[in-house]
Amino acid sequence: MPYVNIKVTKEGVTAEQKEKLIRGVTQLLFDVLGKKPQTTYVVIDEVETDNWGVGGETVTVRRKRVS
Amino acid sequence: MPYVNIKVTKEGVTAEQKEKLIRGVTQLLFDVLGKKPQTTYVVIDEVETDNWGVGGETVTVRRKRVS
Amino acid sequence: MPYVNIKVTKEGVTAEQKEKLIRGVTQLLFDVLGKKPQTTYVVIDEVETDNWGVGGETVTVRRKRVS
Amino acid sequence: MPYVNIKVTKEGVTAEQKEKLIRGVTQLLFDVLGKKPQTTYVVIDEVETDNWGVGGETVTVRRKRVS
Amino acid sequence: MPYVNIKVTKEGVTAEQKEKLIRGVTQLLFDVLGKKPQTTYVVIDEVETDNWGVGGETVTVRRKRVS
Amino acid sequence: MPYVNIKVTKEGVTAEQKEKLIRGVTQLLFDVLGKKPQTTYVVIDEVETDNWGVGGETVTVRRKRVS
Repeated sequence: MPYVNIKVTKEGVTAEQKEKLIRGVTQLLFDVLGKKPQTTYVVIDEVETDNWGVGGETVTVRRKRVS
Repeated sequence: MPYVNIKVTKEGVTAEQKEKLIRGVTQLLFDVLGKKPQTTYVVIDEVETDNWGVGGETVTVRRKRVS
Repeated sequence: MPYVNIKVTKEGVTAEQKEKLIRGVTQLLFDVLGKKPQTTYVVIDEVETDNWGVGGETVTVRRKRVS
Repeated sequence: MPYVNIKVTKEGVTAEQKEKLIRGVTQLLFDVLGKKPQTTYVVIDEVETDNWGVGGETVTVRRKRVS
Repeated sequence: MPYVNIKVTKEGVTAEQKEKLIRGVTQLLFDVLGKKPQTTYVVIDEVETDNWGVGGETVTVRRKRVS
Repeated sequence: MPYVNIKVTKEGVTAEQKEKLIRGVTQLLFDVLGKKPQTTYVVIDEVETDNWGVGGETVTVRRKRVS
């Protein structure tokens, strides 16, 4: 009965990429721990770059500074 | 001082239903553990069906396949 | 496919009380949103009073001050 | 490698306020635990007042009742 | 800068299995979204079977009933 | 009514340091957003180094490799 939460910045993740993440992590839990795929829940949170901080600044600011 | 987080798929949950969930879980914590209602926080997250996976597929895909 | 997380301070919650919380919240999600009990996951976290803060102090300190 | 999640009600938090929260909590983890700022992640969740409950009612209802 | 949280029941997950989960999910985020491994954090929570509910009962009770 | 969750590796955080984290983050939410200290909850999770991954390896392995 695993529960997995994946948080990434909201920068254009496609429906197909979400499917690949869900399929991949469900397979991983089966391969490593033998967890039945039907019992694995995965929730993907896409977080605005204004709302994600690293190194004391928002990702929005960081992206501008670095690019 | 309980904190409760309820995650459900975003499929038309009404304001009234949210009120019922919040009232119900707050009452439950009082009945079972004696927690004062004023100290119980409840946060409801509604998750897009593209972002929720079960059985290795998104709920979006699952709903189409099953219906 | 709801997922519910309940956080309370670690102060002697019994196995029977945990069962009541799980049964109650699962029933609530069925009553309010029609969610099938078999699909509802509930995770209870018991948090040490040193690790829970409210009003800018730990619950450990608060309990001593108030009692 | 700290990870911090801040949840507040969605009531007009500005980009500048988010920057201050991220800068402040990152500095705090450096001051108290010596955690290098580059390794601290902060995620801010803004929660609709319909989806946040306290005292058995939503913040939406509470705000109307109190004001 | 992804953050992944994996919750499983506490039933003897070994250090080697944890390494495999961490390596696998980090690789997945690189393969699907191009996220640099150095920026991916993974936190594994092992939850006591008394504290995990499904179908309205604890996993402890479920395991006894099913076996 | 903010809720803050701080996750750090379990490496000897003292009760006094926890108090400082809780006091600091509660003050920050008052200074930046005007949130009343009595309404701010803070939960600190200390995560075993075997259960925290970065760069595709556990912190346990990383600490050995780097030292």
